[in-house]
Amino acid sequence: MSRPNKMIPPKKLLHFLKKENNFVIAAHISPDGDALGSSIALSMALESLGKKTIVYDKDPVPEFYKFLPGSERFTDSISNSKSKIQNLILIDCNDAERAGIEKLQFASSAVIDHHETARDFGDIRWIDPKSPATGLMIFYLIKELGVTVTKAIAANLYTAIAIDTGTFRYSNTTPAVLRVSAELIEAGAGPSYIAENLYETWTDGRFRLLQKVLNTLEIYNDIAITHVTLDMFRETGAAISDTETFPGFPRKLRSIKISALFREIENNHYKISLRSKGRDVNVAKIAEIFGGGGHSNAAGYKIRADFKAAKEALLKAVRETA
Amino acid sequence: MSRPNKMIPPKKLLHFLKKENNFVIAAHISPDGDALGSSIALSMALESLGKKTIVYDKDPVPEFYKFLPGSERFTDSISNSKSKIQNLILIDCNDAERAGIEKLQFASSAVIDHHETARDFGDIRWIDPKSPATGLMIFYLIKELGVTVTKAIAANLYTAIAIDTGTFRYSNTTPAVLRVSAELIEAGAGPSYIAENLYETWTDGRFRLLQKVLNTLEIYNDIAITHVTLDMFRETGAAISDTETFPGFPRKLRSIKISALFREIENNHYKISLRSKGRDVNVAKIAEIFGGGGHSNAAGYKIRADFKAAKEALLKAVRETA
Repeated sequence: MSRPNKMIPPKKLLHFLKKENNFVIAAHISPDGDALGSSIALSMALESLGKKTIVYDKDPVPEFYKFLPGSERFTDSISNSKSKIQNLILIDCNDAERAGIEKLQFASSAVIDHHETARDFGDIRWIDPKSPATGLMIFYLIKELGVTVTKAIAANLYTAIAIDTGTFRYSNTTPAVLRVSAELIEAGAGPSYIAENLYETWTDGRFRLLQKVLNTLEIYNDIAITHVTLDMFRETGAAISDTETFPGFPRKLRSIKISALFREIENNHYKISLRSKGRDVNVAKIAEIFGGGGHSNAAGYKIRADFKAAKEALLKAVRETA
Repeated sequence: MSRPNKMIPPKKLLHFLKKENNFVIAAHISPDGDALGSSIALSMALESLGKKTIVYDKDPVPEFYKFLPGSERFTDSISNSKSKIQNLILIDCNDAERAGIEKLQFASSAVIDHHETARDFGDIRWIDPKSPATGLMIFYLIKELGVTVTKAIAANLYTAIAIDTGTFRYSNTTPAVLRVSAELIEAGAGPSYIAENLYETWTDGRFRLLQKVLNTLEIYNDIAITHVTLDMFRETGAAISDTETFPGFPRKLRSIKISALFREIENNHYKISLRSKGRDVNVAKIAEIFGGGGHSNAAGYKIRADFKAAKEALLKAVRETA
């Protein structure tokens, strides 16, 4: 294409990646497809250039992301190798705490991220909130490094881009997203294989939990509230990571602008996911009131309260933010 | 792009469209997004060339497709205008009966379709089962006619392509699909606006019907069966067209290869939709046993029987087809 490509990796970052030989690639806790796919793809690209990488996440790779080629690269232990590897690349977040590595020391550090709420961590910072996914930035970075996009790299980057654009349904689905994805299919990514792995590998327990959750639906004007109790988790054997897509279901209702899912993580302690439609409501701003964060259409936070109080606090925050 | 584009409209079709001045554009009954978007886009393109068109469907445009610019062009009456308009363009089907126009006479007729089960109707036939959507064929046709893709044409074609590729989740999501869609975004199609209209404009009744339907889930090995009774339609006020996406839900289960939704249309009369995952099961072949048809991953048929007998007939057909 002859169109100007504005997503150009900083020269300092390219220099750092070319010069150094050992890297820790670390992604945020509770890693999603963008964090996982971006980290693995970058690791594969750097290793094809003869570098050594350690791919770190404090949390394990969720079961349904294990289809990603190279997902076994992830380790939850880097303290032992600290003396050997000095260079950090922080992926899909821009704050050492979000990756649980705030107590470690690195000789130098680079950040590659697309989140809005930027902190000042990192010697080299490539933070582009206009990028729909960190995976798209990694794609341009890999091309700039002159690395061939293998089938495995393509599958990881396609997944990263797919998950952060709702598989091309969110407003961040730009022409560049679709053209890069077309190129990734040509490099070997399988769109239906990836979509089936992302959306159609539910366990029976996860499906039964969805049935239960949909039955809890309460509607307050244009806000849909659903919730999961500890009992429901116990009865179905499903885990909190199984509920990641659940707040998307009440969004289907025409009358709804915000969908909030309350998940009981312990007695009187809730993890809340917020999803909004269109550009009217920025749920990141609502989540920030409670010390959380995220994107305009997808954000989250935690609160210590009983369900009724937690719900009322949210409804109040929505009223005051609108 | 320098890649060869194999989807080239036949010269005979281009000649027909350039030479004639009046057209009836007719799509199949129970029109979906591909039938609707393709018909409207072609009508707009031909009218921009100074032609007159009538856009016909025997059935009304479903409520949730009324966001398509130009959807008001559809009429369910062409018999009165028969003397004026002699040229038929049959869209997204290749059989006059599928459009309910088998009793009408046309001076000449063209067919533009991507369905597999081809009949011999039409003087000019452009039937490409390799095309993911009729909308993609219309895109290439419009370009070949030298018509500018307006914002309204772009929204219609984007919707047509989106609906037939599961918004880029099915195995027919080719690089060409994504590149053309990128071009349509640049021409003014809004991916999130379209996705929200397609997937997130449910009425309360439709959502309550989904809750009820999910609770009917029965699993027979790798076959998921859900059903809707006439009572459920009555209780929720939802219509049969509201259930179009319901068979997609049990597909989410890892263990499921076929999802079948049975809808009671009258006593002892069921309309069944079949959905399959991957390339293992061709549900069009199963539907054909019962006089129905469709695609490899999405097909349907009707059967006169009680629910138990209808279900057993399907399970038997699946066993014998496998």
